[in-house]
Amino acid sequence: MPVPATRHIVETTLYVRYAETDAMGIVHHANYIVFFEEGRSAYTRQRGSSYAELEKTGVFLTVVEVGARYVKPSVYGQRLTVRCWIAEIRSRGVTFEYEIVDTDTGALSMTGFTKHICVDREGRIILIPALWRIWAE
Amino acid sequence: MPVPATRHIVETTLYVRYAETDAMGIVHHANYIVFFEEGRSAYTRQRGSSYAELEKTGVFLTVVEVGARYVKPSVYGQRLTVRCWIAEIRSRGVTFEYEIVDTDTGALSMTGFTKHICVDREGRIILIPALWRIWAE
Amino acid sequence: MPVPATRHIVETTLYVRYAETDAMGIVHHANYIVFFEEGRSAYTRQRGSSYAELEKTGVFLTVVEVGARYVKPSVYGQRLTVRCWIAEIRSRGVTFEYEIVDTDTGALSMTGFTKHICVDREGRIILIPALWRIWAE
Amino acid sequence: MPVPATRHIVETTLYVRYAETDAMGIVHHANYIVFFEEGRSAYTRQRGSSYAELEKTGVFLTVVEVGARYVKPSVYGQRLTVRCWIAEIRSRGVTFEYEIVDTDTGALSMTGFTKHICVDREGRIILIPALWRIWAE
Repeated sequence: MPVPATRHIVETTLYVRYAETDAMGIVHHANYIVFFEEGRSAYTRQRGSSYAELEKTGVFLTVVEVGARYVKPSVYGQRLTVRCWIAEIRSRGVTFEYEIVDTDTGALSMTGFTKHICVDREGRIILIPALWRIWAE
Repeated sequence: MPVPATRHIVETTLYVRYAETDAMGIVHHANYIVFFEEGRSAYTRQRGSSYAELEKTGVFLTVVEVGARYVKPSVYGQRLTVRCWIAEIRSRGVTFEYEIVDTDTGALSMTGFTKHICVDREGRIILIPALWRIWAE
Repeated sequence: MPVPATRHIVETTLYVRYAETDAMGIVHHANYIVFFEEGRSAYTRQRGSSYAELEKTGVFLTVVEVGARYVKPSVYGQRLTVRCWIAEIRSRGVTFEYEIVDTDTGALSMTGFTKHICVDREGRIILIPALWRIWAE
Repeated sequence: MPVPATRHIVETTLYVRYAETDAMGIVHHANYIVFFEEGRSAYTRQRGSSYAELEKTGVFLTVVEVGARYVKPSVYGQRLTVRCWIAEIRSRGVTFEYEIVDTDTGALSMTGFTKHICVDREGRIILIPALWRIWAE
C-alpha cells in the first residue's frame, strides 16, 4: 500500500524534562524514542481510536524496528513539537514516521521511524484493526 | 519562616506515557518523582523565574530529600494533574509539596515533597535568589 | 514484629549509566529509586525466593511509600553498592531499607526506605507469603 | 577504513530491572538503547580507555544515528548479555554494533548500531583520539 498523497500529520508539544537530560547537558538520545511514542499516542488519540482503547480490546502494537537521526541537541525547558504520521499500513504491520522540531524556532532536532506488528495478548501476529487500516487511505 | 496563609498552587497536566508504565500495568513508582519535577518546573515558569533561567545564572537547586505516598495507581493514557506549591523557603533551602490527581475525576493518586538546597556550579551551598524568597511571602 | 537483632543485608553493585545522569552532571535523583528496586530484586534472589518467581504465583508487592535522603552525588562510570535489608515484615506489608555507598571508597551516597503491601492480580490486599515472613525471624 | 577481519567483542551482562518493563509485561523498547550504551561503556572500560576518562579530557562522543531491530521480547529478572564491537572508525566518527542475547539460552533478543561523532565541550567536531583509532586496526 503506497504512502497516501495527503498524509495526516499530528503534532504534539512537550517541555523537555530535567530527568531527560544527561551529563552532556542535552536530552539523552534514548529519550527521543519515548518522544516518538508520545507522538504516536497523540496520533491515535486525535484520530479517534486511541492506543489505550485498542489495548483494552486485546490488540497490541509491538515494536520491531526503530531508526533515528539526531540533527540538533535539545536542552532542559526547551519546547519540542513531535510530528507523527503513518508512512505505511500493511495487513499486519504499520510504520510511523516522526520529525521533532523546536517549537519556537522550527529548527529540526531529529527524524525517525518505528515499525510495528499487531499481536494479541499471547503474542500471536494478528491483523491490524480495520479502523486503523482506513487511516492509510 | 512559616508556611504562608495563602499558598500559591501551580497545576500542570500530563498524559501518562507508555514508557512510564511497568509490568504491573501501572505507572512505575519512580516516575512520579519525575512528575514532581515537572510540577516544580511548571511552578517556576508560571511564577516568572524558570528553573532553566536560574541555572544559566549559575544557581542550582540540588535535591536533599524526597518523600512520596502512593494512594491510587495510574495507567497509560490517563491524564494526571500535578499540583505543586512551596511549603517553606529558608535562606539556603526550599521545600516543595505535591499532589497528583486524576485530571478527569479529581481522585487523589499520590502526595509528596522534595527538599532542596541552593548550590553554585562547584557544589558550594549558597543563598536562595531573592526573587525566589519573596514567593514565600 | 520488631526488627530482628541480626539483620540480613544483601549487597549489589552497579556502574552508573550515562542515561542515569542529568544536566547537573550527576545521577538524577529519581534514578536512585530504581537502584533501591535493584537492591530489593537482588535481596529476593539471594534469599532464594526471587520477586520474579513471586509474581508468577500471582502475588505482587505494590509500593505505598518511598523516602530518600541524598548525601553525596554520584557520577557516570562510578561504581555504587546498594545495601538492602528488611526493616519490618507484617502480615500484609513489608518495609525495605537501603544504603547506597561508593563501592571503592565506601563513602555514603544516600539512604532510603520503601514500604510495600501485598496484592493479588486484581489489586486486593493479601497476606505476605509465608516464605517471606520467615525472613523477619 | 574497512571493518577489521578480527573484531574485538566485549560482553557485559545485566539483569532486566522492573523499572525497564512496560504494561505489555516486557522490556520497553527505548530501554534497549540504554543497554547499547552500557555495552559501549563496558567496551571502552575493557579496552583500557573508558568513556568516563575520555570526557574528563574534554572529548565527547555524541550520537548521530541509532538503529535497532527487535527479535524477541525480554522480561523482568531475565539476564541479558550485551555484545558490543566497533564496526567502523573514521577520523571524526565511530560506529558501534550490538547484539543482545539471553544469557542463559543464547537466544537472540535484538541487534542494533549507533553512530557517533567526536566533539569538544563547545560542540565543535574534532578528531577521534589516537588511542581509540588503533582499536580499528
